Amino acid sequence: MTKTYQVVGIGNAMVDVLWECPDAFLTENGVQKGIMQLTDRDRGVELYGRIGPAREISGGSAANTIAAVAHLGGRTAYVGKVKDDQLGAIFAHDLRAQGADYDTPLADGDHAAETGRCIVLVTPDGERSMNTYLGVTEFLSPSDIDEGQMADADWIYLEGYRFDGPDSHEAFAKAIAACKGAGGRVSLTLSDPFCVDRHRAAFRAMIRDHVDLLFCNRAEILSMYETDDFEAALAQGAQDVGVLACTDSEHGAHILSDGQRWHAPAVPVRVVDATGAGDLFAGAFLWGLSNGFDLEACGRMGCLGASEVISHIGARPESDLRDLFAQHNLL
Amino acid sequence: MTKTYQVVGIGNAMVDVLWECPDAFLTENGVQKGIMQLTDRDRGVELYGRIGPAREISGGSAANTIAAVAHLGGRTAYVGKVKDDQLGAIFAHDLRAQGADYDTPLADGDHAAETGRCIVLVTPDGERSMNTYLGVTEFLSPSDIDEGQMADADWIYLEGYRFDGPDSHEAFAKAIAACKGAGGRVSLTLSDPFCVDRHRAAFRAMIRDHVDLLFCNRAEILSMYETDDFEAALAQGAQDVGVLACTDSEHGAHILSDGQRWHAPAVPVRVVDATGAGDLFAGAFLWGLSNGFDLEACGRMGCLGASEVISHIGARPESDLRDLFAQHNLL
Repeated sequence: MTKTYQVVGIGNAMVDVLWECPDAFLTENGVQKGIMQLTDRDRGVELYGRIGPAREISGGSAANTIAAVAHLGGRTAYVGKVKDDQLGAIFAHDLRAQGADYDTPLADGDHAAETGRCIVLVTPDGERSMNTYLGVTEFLSPSDIDEGQMADADWIYLEGYRFDGPDSHEAFAKAIAACKGAGGRVSLTLSDPFCVDRHRAAFRAMIRDHVDLLFCNRAEILSMYETDDFEAALAQGAQDVGVLACTDSEHGAHILSDGQRWHAPAVPVRVVDATGAGDLFAGAFLWGLSNGFDLEACGRMGCLGASEVISHIGARPESDLRDLFAQHNLL
Repeated sequence: MTKTYQVVGIGNAMVDVLWECPDAFLTENGVQKGIMQLTDRDRGVELYGRIGPAREISGGSAANTIAAVAHLGGRTAYVGKVKDDQLGAIFAHDLRAQGADYDTPLADGDHAAETGRCIVLVTPDGERSMNTYLGVTEFLSPSDIDEGQMADADWIYLEGYRFDGPDSHEAFAKAIAACKGAGGRVSLTLSDPFCVDRHRAAFRAMIRDHVDLLFCNRAEILSMYETDDFEAALAQGAQDVGVLACTDSEHGAHILSDGQRWHAPAVPVRVVDATGAGDLFAGAFLWGLSNGFDLEACGRMGCLGASEVISHIGARPESDLRDLFAQHNLL
């Protein structure tokens, strides 16, 4: 029987606040380049007070992935918490307008925290340094997980960042049980090397016990397996999961499964804003997989998705990915 | 004595919600192309529910002008009402981060209306159709006008759109009296042909009695003087005010003053989003005038400012206007 959803994603719901800044701003303000750092509300407010005129675009890692699946015409839904406030309304609108289902209960208007936001500092090299105030999205709890929805998904897609909340491990466990119990499969993204560092044991247990498809990049898998030998890390990852999809920026992506291995080349573009590269890789890959394409084609779709999103500001697709796939003879 | 401000602008404080849409969307949704239409909250919500994923950028016509003056390094301030909500905080941040003073009292958090927003529909030809929910910005009152600040300005800049609020005429009268009483001068933009239509008599009285510098475009001045003869309208405008600066899209701008006349050619660029063209023209023109440039140079600066802002999405400058002026031998 065809399930309602090809992919259901669970992650931190965020609105991105984008500012193109000089490199000096990062050092002057103690922002570590190229990674995601969590901030409390005060630090977020302080940093916001220092940045220049910005623009707001809906973001959130898994939400970007789900937006990409929806953009491609996939049947998809998202789970992540926003508040009943203006940024929450913007987040919900943008996801639904892209064609994804999104029905996570809102945090009450009187919740002390606000909808999460991420100050994304984009330096002239296109690298992004993210400063995340989680806000209410930290409080996604098991009660927000609809077991029926998880059972009705071919794939669930779990965002590693989501491990940073108090009830997140339980919420993930509930989602995994419901999905797997109904014959669905589980994918996970490691999200960030420092996020891996904060939750390595929990990630490892989940990967070995439940994950069918693991998304990561070079830095993340090295952190995961605590090695500086990329090939060794890939080999270990491939032992732990059915499919490993590891991106390596301008070197493309490595796909490993069942003793086989493929390489998908990166698609050269001028990098304007690297935000969302991994998210779009995963979205395009999952769409391909859900529609019966082989792993090599999925990897190439992933690289094309990443190339589209890094060629403009913002982490959601802006031009037609299906056209792009067709131009590269993938459709 | 040097005054604190070269330009103080008064207008409708708005956050723009930008979506690039096909022409068919306008006709299907009864949106009139190329103009600003006021919507109530329900219509705004309805329209927002129909548009695709959008991005939010601070806007507001006079606020864009003041942002341009600040961007150029001018001493400038803005007056316009937002609420103590998330969009209000975004609006205030972006203006201050650009270097403008902004101290208008916030509407209380319990005000029934929200911070104003404008759904800007950008069609493939770069034309913008604006759907404005005024929200709390409609309620700017005389008590929000700081007479000391108006007296401390070389120029005040009044936004025609602001005539749409209940207390706006009084607020403008207070600002004009304070500014002129201290030897300052008054500029006004007609904003929109239909706005002129709504308030023709009030505009005319203000122009004849108080305005030293009038900004408008072809459609607006034709509406103002109820004629279809552009030259006749220009002649009449030039009789009513000390300086008339009238833009005519790809035909550039006409500057008329004291029996003399200059033409500033438009600067050819690919039009991505026409939003803010008139606002940037006024900002660059006022900056030039406040810094002692002659009217012809001010007109050329205005056209360069307009060309920058229409070459990208959003109505605030994104590249260095002083560099652009220097490249054209204006600095």
